[in-house]
Amino acid sequence: MPVEILLINGPNLNLLGQRETSIYGALSLDEIGRRATEHARRRGATLHAYQSNHEGAMVDAVHDARNGVQGLVINAGAYTHTSIALRDAIAAVAIPAIEVHLSNVYAREEFRHHSMLARVCVGVIAGFGWRSYLLGIDALLGHLGLLGEE
Amino acid sequence: MPVEILLINGPNLNLLGQRETSIYGALSLDEIGRRATEHARRRGATLHAYQSNHEGAMVDAVHDARNGVQGLVINAGAYTHTSIALRDAIAAVAIPAIEVHLSNVYAREEFRHHSMLARVCVGVIAGFGWRSYLLGIDALLGHLGLLGEE
Amino acid sequence: MPVEILLINGPNLNLLGQRETSIYGALSLDEIGRRATEHARRRGATLHAYQSNHEGAMVDAVHDARNGVQGLVINAGAYTHTSIALRDAIAAVAIPAIEVHLSNVYAREEFRHHSMLARVCVGVIAGFGWRSYLLGIDALLGHLGLLGEE
Amino acid sequence: MPVEILLINGPNLNLLGQRETSIYGALSLDEIGRRATEHARRRGATLHAYQSNHEGAMVDAVHDARNGVQGLVINAGAYTHTSIALRDAIAAVAIPAIEVHLSNVYAREEFRHHSMLARVCVGVIAGFGWRSYLLGIDALLGHLGLLGEE
Amino acid sequence: MPVEILLINGPNLNLLGQRETSIYGALSLDEIGRRATEHARRRGATLHAYQSNHEGAMVDAVHDARNGVQGLVINAGAYTHTSIALRDAIAAVAIPAIEVHLSNVYAREEFRHHSMLARVCVGVIAGFGWRSYLLGIDALLGHLGLLGEE
Amino acid sequence: MPVEILLINGPNLNLLGQRETSIYGALSLDEIGRRATEHARRRGATLHAYQSNHEGAMVDAVHDARNGVQGLVINAGAYTHTSIALRDAIAAVAIPAIEVHLSNVYAREEFRHHSMLARVCVGVIAGFGWRSYLLGIDALLGHLGLLGEE
Amino acid sequence: MPVEILLINGPNLNLLGQRETSIYGALSLDEIGRRATEHARRRGATLHAYQSNHEGAMVDAVHDARNGVQGLVINAGAYTHTSIALRDAIAAVAIPAIEVHLSNVYAREEFRHHSMLARVCVGVIAGFGWRSYLLGIDALLGHLGLLGEE
Amino acid sequence: MPVEILLINGPNLNLLGQRETSIYGALSLDEIGRRATEHARRRGATLHAYQSNHEGAMVDAVHDARNGVQGLVINAGAYTHTSIALRDAIAAVAIPAIEVHLSNVYAREEFRHHSMLARVCVGVIAGFGWRSYLLGIDALLGHLGLLGEE
Amino acid sequence: MPVEILLINGPNLNLLGQRETSIYGALSLDEIGRRATEHARRRGATLHAYQSNHEGAMVDAVHDARNGVQGLVINAGAYTHTSIALRDAIAAVAIPAIEVHLSNVYAREEFRHHSMLARVCVGVIAGFGWRSYLLGIDALLGHLGLLGEE
Amino acid sequence: MPVEILLINGPNLNLLGQRETSIYGALSLDEIGRRATEHARRRGATLHAYQSNHEGAMVDAVHDARNGVQGLVINAGAYTHTSIALRDAIAAVAIPAIEVHLSNVYAREEFRHHSMLARVCVGVIAGFGWRSYLLGIDALLGHLGLLGEE
Amino acid sequence: MPVEILLINGPNLNLLGQRETSIYGALSLDEIGRRATEHARRRGATLHAYQSNHEGAMVDAVHDARNGVQGLVINAGAYTHTSIALRDAIAAVAIPAIEVHLSNVYAREEFRHHSMLARVCVGVIAGFGWRSYLLGIDALLGHLGLLGEE
Amino acid sequence: MPVEILLINGPNLNLLGQRETSIYGALSLDEIGRRATEHARRRGATLHAYQSNHEGAMVDAVHDARNGVQGLVINAGAYTHTSIALRDAIAAVAIPAIEVHLSNVYAREEFRHHSMLARVCVGVIAGFGWRSYLLGIDALLGHLGLLGEE
Repeated sequence: MPVEILLINGPNLNLLGQRETSIYGALSLDEIGRRATEHARRRGATLHAYQSNHEGAMVDAVHDARNGVQGLVINAGAYTHTSIALRDAIAAVAIPAIEVHLSNVYAREEFRHHSMLARVCVGVIAGFGWRSYLLGIDALLGHLGLLGEE
Repeated sequence: MPVEILLINGPNLNLLGQRETSIYGALSLDEIGRRATEHARRRGATLHAYQSNHEGAMVDAVHDARNGVQGLVINAGAYTHTSIALRDAIAAVAIPAIEVHLSNVYAREEFRHHSMLARVCVGVIAGFGWRSYLLGIDALLGHLGLLGEE
Repeated sequence: MPVEILLINGPNLNLLGQRETSIYGALSLDEIGRRATEHARRRGATLHAYQSNHEGAMVDAVHDARNGVQGLVINAGAYTHTSIALRDAIAAVAIPAIEVHLSNVYAREEFRHHSMLARVCVGVIAGFGWRSYLLGIDALLGHLGLLGEE
Repeated sequence: MPVEILLINGPNLNLLGQRETSIYGALSLDEIGRRATEHARRRGATLHAYQSNHEGAMVDAVHDARNGVQGLVINAGAYTHTSIALRDAIAAVAIPAIEVHLSNVYAREEFRHHSMLARVCVGVIAGFGWRSYLLGIDALLGHLGLLGEE
Repeated sequence: MPVEILLINGPNLNLLGQRETSIYGALSLDEIGRRATEHARRRGATLHAYQSNHEGAMVDAVHDARNGVQGLVINAGAYTHTSIALRDAIAAVAIPAIEVHLSNVYAREEFRHHSMLARVCVGVIAGFGWRSYLLGIDALLGHLGLLGEE
Repeated sequence: MPVEILLINGPNLNLLGQRETSIYGALSLDEIGRRATEHARRRGATLHAYQSNHEGAMVDAVHDARNGVQGLVINAGAYTHTSIALRDAIAAVAIPAIEVHLSNVYAREEFRHHSMLARVCVGVIAGFGWRSYLLGIDALLGHLGLLGEE
Repeated sequence: MPVEILLINGPNLNLLGQRETSIYGALSLDEIGRRATEHARRRGATLHAYQSNHEGAMVDAVHDARNGVQGLVINAGAYTHTSIALRDAIAAVAIPAIEVHLSNVYAREEFRHHSMLARVCVGVIAGFGWRSYLLGIDALLGHLGLLGEE
Repeated sequence: MPVEILLINGPNLNLLGQRETSIYGALSLDEIGRRATEHARRRGATLHAYQSNHEGAMVDAVHDARNGVQGLVINAGAYTHTSIALRDAIAAVAIPAIEVHLSNVYAREEFRHHSMLARVCVGVIAGFGWRSYLLGIDALLGHLGLLGEE
Repeated sequence: MPVEILLINGPNLNLLGQRETSIYGALSLDEIGRRATEHARRRGATLHAYQSNHEGAMVDAVHDARNGVQGLVINAGAYTHTSIALRDAIAAVAIPAIEVHLSNVYAREEFRHHSMLARVCVGVIAGFGWRSYLLGIDALLGHLGLLGEE
Repeated sequence: MPVEILLINGPNLNLLGQRETSIYGALSLDEIGRRATEHARRRGATLHAYQSNHEGAMVDAVHDARNGVQGLVINAGAYTHTSIALRDAIAAVAIPAIEVHLSNVYAREEFRHHSMLARVCVGVIAGFGWRSYLLGIDALLGHLGLLGEE
Repeated sequence: MPVEILLINGPNLNLLGQRETSIYGALSLDEIGRRATEHARRRGATLHAYQSNHEGAMVDAVHDARNGVQGLVINAGAYTHTSIALRDAIAAVAIPAIEVHLSNVYAREEFRHHSMLARVCVGVIAGFGWRSYLLGIDALLGHLGLLGEE
Repeated sequence: MPVEILLINGPNLNLLGQRETSIYGALSLDEIGRRATEHARRRGATLHAYQSNHEGAMVDAVHDARNGVQGLVINAGAYTHTSIALRDAIAAVAIPAIEVHLSNVYAREEFRHHSMLARVCVGVIAGFGWRSYLLGIDALLGHLGLLGEE
């Protein structure tokens, strides 16, 4: 039975490809989702994607992950930097989570340098555009011991 | 002709596998180097590995990379957090660099949360043990357009 | 006619008993609600319980309290530390509120030491597990002059 | 065809006229909306008003503005001071926005002096009660070149 | 044999009822002591009350508590915010302690928001006037498992 | 008798139209003064304009306003951010003042985000170029109850 | 009946004349007391002097001042900078107090620049050696309306 | 030949008696000057008074004091807190200066707690209304050894 | 005549051996005193030991040291970090003092990293349990030139 | 036609040679001006010198420089550290400016380490006494391409 | 077999006796080494001394200590305050280390008060000149249980 | 015999002319060295140039300067901002040093505004490209009294 991964996308990511493409790239979230899903499928995993602009809805989604999801790949967008609620949710469900970002948040405004989530995640991947998601999937599967050792 | 990647390791990483294995893992730097080299080779790239405990020697190594290296994967260890010299070196050579860390530095002491290098790197990967290096290679090759699109 | 109390629970409290029980205790939110309701009932008060992971929904709940509720007992969870919206809501409805916490937030991470709500509440009770709720009810009834003087 | 303006109101503004009238004034949000609509109408613009206590819903509203709205007048209330999500939303939709406040936020608590939104807005108007909205409409129309030069 | 509780009051609390009654209430410390003693007695506990304006004497009192006292209820007044000595004393004697305050210290001057003691106490109760003491007694007895479960 | 308004302009504003026009616009201070005067005139008010590069002279001007001026519109330029003397002057004369800025100071250097004057002004208008002055006049007249209610 | 003034001296002031005379002067505390007493006597006031190295004892002395003392002149020495207990004591007894210092504390180490007491005192006099006490007495009598107007 | 004292008053003090009398008192600057002059005269000193709202003019006045003035009494008003120029001027002329304030600046806004001048003055007197000036004269004469020892 | 050394111990050190032995060690203060006395005796010095939980009493003890004591070894415990009074006392008596700590205070909570006393002591020794006292005695005797040069 | 240079000197520099000569040197401003003028003349440039203690007058002088001056050498003295007005003036006139200081400001008080002007100047020269002016002239001429390349 | 101790000296210590002797003493590093070696020898230990001005070389030396060294005495000089690399090296080799300083670093510039190394060392000794080294040796041997109990 | 000057260049300066030429200029370090050497020669001085990327090697070079070098011109590059070791080295050798920078460091990132070296140097010259070196030589020779007075 394939491993189930939940990809959670936060606020404004629904506008990908339509907004500030010099920062976030030209692909739509749907297209990125397709590539991530295919990438996961090739590694024997099933990817479910979720997006919301609502902090509370993202907390709900993390909670719901307890129903069969083995790992989270999460781009919490703006909530990354301020949401204690999301941090507590990830800590509470005890499902390994990978924090990903499209842009190199450390090369942007000061307030994007701090992550409330990083301490409760396995690790962080930032700055590689849509490929951050594929790397996040690989990092998660490696953490779960589900990548054949190379 | 294969792409040339330089992997630079900073202070104390020569002790990997012999020190604080709960934080850094049980593999030696040599073994990690072998896995990274093999990983790169399978993707058509040649990996050169360098380690030093000397900030200045790391700066020298970054400078030398101008002789044929297309990309850097750099785990600057302790110098990550304080070295303006390394930052300036990376900015100066204008070779894309990926910042990697074995441990999740954001879940450790406060002084490890800040990176002097991140702003001049393409992106950051932290927290996945020796796999951080493989992910760093993938991220670099993707950035260089040398990964077949999946 | 019995006094009406609204008990508002914030994000992740729906997972009580299922998460980090060493911090939050082993009782479910439902069981705590039952004990609090019974505790209130024995003191002649009716307790209504509400939980949400959504900051906005909690604001809505505070607003709705204007319809007949004489006092609030509020455990805003993660939003305690950042929500100006909840603070403004409590100040706006002018219903006395008691801030409660299951854990001793002052003995945890630095970012849990500050409360945005405390200044607009009657007082704060923290660190006594599910009993914090019972103490909160007593504190509220005492503030309302509805406890027979002992 | 008249220019379309979206007026977005944030948390607790639905209580206007019923709460702390010494700070916020005695008019209800509906009454202010009527005055603002009439003010816009007289200048040849159509005003749509939206209010929510939910940060995510406000982000959604900003996104929806891409469907024909030429300008935003936004009183984000408490979210003004903390919401990176709203900031990113305004930056993403690339519709000119005017930040308005009923009260003089700079004369109140320290935490109300900072706006996360101001940097991505055309400008800020604060302290004039319900008239802040009318001034905001004028400022927006002036910015759009839709006020006859006086 | 009844449980022994030591109630420790810090500087200026001997003036209760004679000073700033709008902040601290109109009851004298003696009267509050009587109510607290009676409250404890009704729950099967014996309350001993101590007051001093001397930090060192309060440290001595905490030390003396090792002679038969099962729990502390402590209102350290001004020393709450600065006394590392009291903090160390409470940690040293390893007797559970409840921090209480008459006023809502979080709604007063900034320097009263921080407690040096909270981290070594079971929990904190603040803002309920003389009732804070009764709630503190209940919290302590609950913590000791000496309240019949309701 | 028409209401008298004093418009005070601070340092470097005499160079308007000749300096950094991308920030401050292409109109000269004289031209802006003409538009503001006409704008005021149409609303039944008389506008007097004053400019100085001297902090002390601006304080003097505020003092002189006690001779018949009913309201101030003040763009204190660089002194906005540091002048306690101007702040005290505005507080002392007890004439309502509107703080205006041509540029959106909140979108510029950090040191321009703080205003020493805002707390003693009725409100703040920033970011609308020369139109900020017209909006300031409207805001002042509205505050004085001298705009026919729309 | 002459007005009663209590002069309170804090820690290390008992060593005056024997320690660091370049900072504190060559007179002993007794000699200064004599001069101050005589100075007060000439103005129709009785001066009582008290000195202690104990913060708690100083709090006690402030409390005792309620028995007939009309004004305090207080040099709290090192406790000036840290004692919330003394601050609360002065606020509690509601007797006018003048803060005095022998040395110019603002010209010494940074940690001597802040006074916890100043906010609850009538005013501050610092830097005039033993004459600070005489000036303090004059300031107090002036505040009490007991100096004939000159 | 009598000692010459220069009394320098800073910005807004020309409005004394006409502004915020609850903070600054009801006497005009002229009346205070008369009382200070008479007070000095009785002690054998001649007082010259100067007032300006201009920082530069105050610097000029301090410079001019080198022509025969033996001591300065200076109430720099708002410039107290920010003027390095005045500080340097006082240090440069090497004439003893007494810093005085009408109000207790330490009991007002945080930004009034710091004085740029205190370190180069003999001492500070604050909080005694117009009597601060008389006390300042006494402090200066005492410092100059021109008060008969009492 | 043997050199006289005063060993001063601060708050909670009377509980040594009975509290948190993992931090402070298993020896009682009496036993440590015996070892220190014997250690001093073997080096030709007489050691007097004093302990108090009262800051003021410690100040008194430092003052009393002027009667024949040539050097201080001081473990001020919690007061190390906050007591300006002790600092001033040590500076006042002008007797060389060695600051010692049982635990490595620099490896504990942030607030234990700063010492108010270190600047007025000869030097600091921390982290060696009861041996810190013996090292402190050696350091003091060496400083006094009373150790035969090795 | 020779290049015109304006040398602007700020507050207290008129006292040079008469004040704190250990910091600022023994030459008068006139003598320094003569040397600087001669130095400029030998390099084919005309130097105009201006001094004022008034911030506003210095702003005026910078503005006036637009009438034929090709470069500024500016020692703003105390205003260096606080004057946004001067900074804006230099930025506005778009004439290259060299910031100079007689003393090594970085080796003096902390508040002299920061310059508000440096960011809008070509560069900074500090610490060489009156020679700083000559170096500033050379730096300016070099920047203007008016020094024969050596 | 005697215990082996490595004494590591950092930057500029090679100049001892030739530089700032009022701070660091008049002995050369060689002479201090001789005294320390003899001191160790008398206690049955062999001391090896190493000095480098290179941070990286000091890291190398710590690594090499794994070959038979039982303890480190380290005076890292300037690197004490900034070197995370040295800190990590000491933590990695898991050999007990004693931090020593010739001068009382806590009585010098603020930036010398913080040590990056202290947390990973057994303890700290500072301020006793060359005797700090002897005390460090004793502290180390005591920690290793190699001092006969006195 | 000509005066000997040592020019020390720090990390990344070996890349001059090859890196970020918009910041650092187009000349190579060799070419700059030639110009500086010729400049010095014309003034009767001999210039020795040294460059290293190693902090420790730069410390060594400063030490070696004691062999006959009368002055240092030092561009420590990135180490300027963090190296206490270099600071101590310059202080130790007691040879006058001039701090120079090619770029205007005060107009770049915040972390380049602070210099660890400035306090121990004669003065600072920054922002004039390769000419900063020539100015530094002149400043040094002037400081040494080796420039004929102009």
